[in-house]
Amino acid sequence: MKDEIAIGIDLGGMSVRVGAIDQQGTLLAVHDALIEAARGPEAGLARISALIEQVLTETDARPLVGIGIGSTGPVDPVLGVINNPYTLPGWKEVPITRWLRKYYDVPITLENDADAAALGEYWRGAGQSVRRLYAITVGTGIGVSLILDGHIYRGLNNAHPDGGHMIVDPSGPPCYCGAHGCWESLCSGPAIARRAREADLSSSMILEMAGGNIDKIDARLVAEAARAGDRLACSIMEKVADYFAIGVVNVITCFVPDMIVLGGGVMKSSDLFLPRLQTAIADHSVMVPATSVKIELARLGNHAGIYGAAYSIWSQREE
Amino acid sequence: MKDEIAIGIDLGGMSVRVGAIDQQGTLLAVHDALIEAARGPEAGLARISALIEQVLTETDARPLVGIGIGSTGPVDPVLGVINNPYTLPGWKEVPITRWLRKYYDVPITLENDADAAALGEYWRGAGQSVRRLYAITVGTGIGVSLILDGHIYRGLNNAHPDGGHMIVDPSGPPCYCGAHGCWESLCSGPAIARRAREADLSSSMILEMAGGNIDKIDARLVAEAARAGDRLACSIMEKVADYFAIGVVNVITCFVPDMIVLGGGVMKSSDLFLPRLQTAIADHSVMVPATSVKIELARLGNHAGIYGAAYSIWSQREE
Repeated sequence: MKDEIAIGIDLGGMSVRVGAIDQQGTLLAVHDALIEAARGPEAGLARISALIEQVLTETDARPLVGIGIGSTGPVDPVLGVINNPYTLPGWKEVPITRWLRKYYDVPITLENDADAAALGEYWRGAGQSVRRLYAITVGTGIGVSLILDGHIYRGLNNAHPDGGHMIVDPSGPPCYCGAHGCWESLCSGPAIARRAREADLSSSMILEMAGGNIDKIDARLVAEAARAGDRLACSIMEKVADYFAIGVVNVITCFVPDMIVLGGGVMKSSDLFLPRLQTAIADHSVMVPATSVKIELARLGNHAGIYGAAYSIWSQREE
Repeated sequence: MKDEIAIGIDLGGMSVRVGAIDQQGTLLAVHDALIEAARGPEAGLARISALIEQVLTETDARPLVGIGIGSTGPVDPVLGVINNPYTLPGWKEVPITRWLRKYYDVPITLENDADAAALGEYWRGAGQSVRRLYAITVGTGIGVSLILDGHIYRGLNNAHPDGGHMIVDPSGPPCYCGAHGCWESLCSGPAIARRAREADLSSSMILEMAGGNIDKIDARLVAEAARAGDRLACSIMEKVADYFAIGVVNVITCFVPDMIVLGGGVMKSSDLFLPRLQTAIADHSVMVPATSVKIELARLGNHAGIYGAAYSIWSQREE
């Protein structure tokens, strides 16, 4: 008999990725496509089904044991419903697991994407077998997840705790979450870009690097300018790194995890964050053993989500 | 055979309380004494032993099943060691469970006092059988505890997460924890008193209420003045309540507990905190179901610690 596979799906606001992963954690096939959420959930589901068929074909029709989905949230993992009109316009109360089960008679799980990415790092990434693993993903937002003994920590009504929206400076900018100065509003990629766009760019190289088009300024460009010694960019990245450090220090104070895994697009510039982060951690180690908490970079990159989604299937079978 | 009892001990910086509690949660005898920590841990232990003997005598020599201790921390619950020269001067590396075991050949447990108080509320107080119970005790400091399915959440190396020191305003006052503007530095009893002492008191009744002695201004007095309509006191309590609300909102965002139990001396003025807290929670319920989190006042008052310490014995026997 051929080795079995699980399908892992990573559904984001822009695109969807589908991978076939065996029980040993080998990625056998992977494909992605734009999700074009605004065309509606039915069209999105058709696109997802096509990707599933594609990876199933490429893995030579191995037996399928289940399909795991990690989706940009809010999601209801128990009901299997995506309810995210915010980053998937029109996707309100979408019973994705029930829809998929019409075509695939296997267990189907649905998790928040930050939880799926964290599970992936727990299973095959930087946080393998870590008892208390806290994952922080910094990109267009800040997503967090706590994995306790291999299980996703869930709040009341299975809610996903959204620590990226903890308030770290009440005098900070407003966020769609209702807060002023939440972590995400201060440190996400768009927050970094906004700081540059709103600054006096006259003696900075940033605008030139953006081809003179202020709308083309993004976080990566600001980070590049900082590495090239641009003073404004350096000062922006230092300010953001200090706020980022406050959030991490708060995570350590509140959870004292064994390890924190940092991932997401903004952490590709981790060199601009880690020195100030380490200093801040050392400065806040009176009440908790903060300097004993391991800080690691994510290892699975943008495959963490499909790994974790597949693991939500494999871990069920191991129980 | 007579009903068995467990001893619960609540060891604070000023005093120690010892109670005898049966498996049904009936408090049969309780006594306290000043701890006078500076006289040294041996003297303190002698005092504790005397209190134990006293409650054992008063409970008519019922069989003793164990002794639970909740102590002002840091403590090591596994090694049974108190290491708190901060609020128990001279108590560095004190192996209290080993010392007590010389006299009492029963299981002896040691927990952080915030954890013990939370366990007490879980067992016989406001949070009975709540799956995710988060307790916040506001007094001379802010102590927190997360009880998950009846078990204390512990961090790396069994560290007690000290969420009272999460940073909520980086422009706030310095704290001994190493942070500026941690929750405790903004909202504890001493923080409230300090705000009043440092204010212009000339058109306020606060100084008069303190008998003209600025050193006698404490949090309770500021709260009383606020209730009497004193404008300065009202503005202080409103500012503190807003900061308190930020901390609670962050707890909800990061943990989404089923219930938050508020206790400690400062929460005797909960009437001055709850209205602004409820507004803040409603304003921050976009990402998590914040308004579904129950907010309750602690029910066991200053007996929560001995209840929880005793429960750490009784719960072992139930397993």
